[in-house]
Amino acid sequence: MKDVVAIDLGGTNIRAARVGQDGKIQARDKIETRAAEGFEKVVARMAELVGKVRGPQTCGIGLGTPGTPDPVTGVMHSAAVNIPDSAGFPLCPRLSERTGLPAAADNDANLHALGESWQGAGRGEAVVLMLTLGTGIGGGLVIGGQVYHGVSNSTEIGHICVDLNGRPCACGCIGCFEAHASANAAARDAREAVQAAGKKGKESLLYKKCGGDLEKLTAQALCDAAREGDTLANLCLDRTCDYLAAGTGSLINALNPSCVIYGGGLALAGPILFDRVRARLGKNRAYQPIWKASKLVEAKLGDDAGLIGAARLAFEKAGIPV
Amino acid sequence: MKDVVAIDLGGTNIRAARVGQDGKIQARDKIETRAAEGFEKVVARMAELVGKVRGPQTCGIGLGTPGTPDPVTGVMHSAAVNIPDSAGFPLCPRLSERTGLPAAADNDANLHALGESWQGAGRGEAVVLMLTLGTGIGGGLVIGGQVYHGVSNSTEIGHICVDLNGRPCACGCIGCFEAHASANAAARDAREAVQAAGKKGKESLLYKKCGGDLEKLTAQALCDAAREGDTLANLCLDRTCDYLAAGTGSLINALNPSCVIYGGGLALAGPILFDRVRARLGKNRAYQPIWKASKLVEAKLGDDAGLIGAARLAFEKAGIPV
Repeated sequence: MKDVVAIDLGGTNIRAARVGQDGKIQARDKIETRAAEGFEKVVARMAELVGKVRGPQTCGIGLGTPGTPDPVTGVMHSAAVNIPDSAGFPLCPRLSERTGLPAAADNDANLHALGESWQGAGRGEAVVLMLTLGTGIGGGLVIGGQVYHGVSNSTEIGHICVDLNGRPCACGCIGCFEAHASANAAARDAREAVQAAGKKGKESLLYKKCGGDLEKLTAQALCDAAREGDTLANLCLDRTCDYLAAGTGSLINALNPSCVIYGGGLALAGPILFDRVRARLGKNRAYQPIWKASKLVEAKLGDDAGLIGAARLAFEKAGIPV
Repeated sequence: MKDVVAIDLGGTNIRAARVGQDGKIQARDKIETRAAEGFEKVVARMAELVGKVRGPQTCGIGLGTPGTPDPVTGVMHSAAVNIPDSAGFPLCPRLSERTGLPAAADNDANLHALGESWQGAGRGEAVVLMLTLGTGIGGGLVIGGQVYHGVSNSTEIGHICVDLNGRPCACGCIGCFEAHASANAAARDAREAVQAAGKKGKESLLYKKCGGDLEKLTAQALCDAAREGDTLANLCLDRTCDYLAAGTGSLINALNPSCVIYGGGLALAGPILFDRVRARLGKNRAYQPIWKASKLVEAKLGDDAGLIGAARLAFEKAGIPV
């Protein structure tokens, strides 16, 4: 069996794993990113890490990074956050020079989607839409095992408009899916609801779960409080699920996927969130003939999704069947 | 030069054209649909029409139809509106039997998109998103010359949600793009605005252009009145353009197309509509790095787009380069 080295370039650490053709991780290691030192030194550390996890059958490298690497050349189109001068950096060529292995790169959200599609919750599905509900909403579309890239490798499915008069989004648009249905948005809306509810807000479990410091209120606490039967928390979660269903339904209607996968922090809420979103999709948030051809499921691979997706990309680049 | 016969199956007429490898129409004819007689008789008339327009170099048939034909087998998945018992009907096989020519079919909105992508406003573009703004909003996505079909051949890009608390849509969802930004929606909103404005409404050009019969107010009259400087009409058109930009921007952000094409009745309004939508997309209705990689243009092929797209499909089915 052949294998590849998969790399996940994060803001704090670079993680790497040796992955076989069966999609199983055989070894793993990590090293500090130290982004501030610049991409040349980051790549040197990547190469060091590759040396630690590669084996005699290793035939390529797959790499997930923030920002936008060109899927063919591996040169960075747009900047990787926190790494100075990353736009235009020839990421894959440099990594290949240092390791002697062919290297391919893609945006980390795309590789999360590819990983879940290959070995996770989307296994065997023809069209997989992955949504990562965290600080923002990232994601990717995998059609027949291939990541959809658009014309300039910038698909931002978290930035569809779900509310014409909604919140301003960090991206500069108004009413984005991400601005209303990310884990951060859910926590912010819950915080505002507690503040607006006055005395009832202070009696709510939402207030108790953050020890009265509303800045510390998390989406997880919101879901926990809702599960424990708190009235205000349930109203807030219902509202978040309205937005989640509107955005998810939009993407289902437009893209007709066989499978939608939720990952990220908010997806850990389990049935209390999934059941509410599914109920809305089955009512008036998706076109029923299209929703019936689809399903909404929870991600399976957790933090390893990006590594597994990077491995899949490396096998494809090396022309090795999986 | 080889040619194919392209067919556009409409509710009133079946139109056909002989189209060369250069995408030019060499001959055309039409025949009544008489949908109520059922698909078997409709196909018999189609075959008669093919006999009239085919030539010695004709090597295949491409067919655009309402409803959802399977792109591989040409069997109808879902019903073609107005034709009894059309679901499950083996449309392409029957047409091939009757004509001795290979036949391929696709949904008419998809073939509009394919036609504009091949020979019209999207010529040479890598990723083309076509939106037909008429009674509803139809459309299609063409990636590298191929129509994107989703998993069950049902992509409904007019049914993304642009307003969480918006209008109920005929599809059963709430706040759909189509329910707010189609030509029909624009006319309805203008009608309601005139009614709500009381005396000022009756003084508006909107009222005059329909002779006081608001049921007859059209999107075209709305655009004409706005162009002539009518204040109320301009407010209404601004509102329609808000929705148009929100939906178009959503699709731009999610799909990163190189080109967005507006067709259908509302697109005939020209600069007074396009300029307003572009201004919104360039401000806060699209993510600017993605919008900068795209453009918004008017369809070029008019009613022939579907025929040209059907021809493109037929050439592909027959394995003939274009």
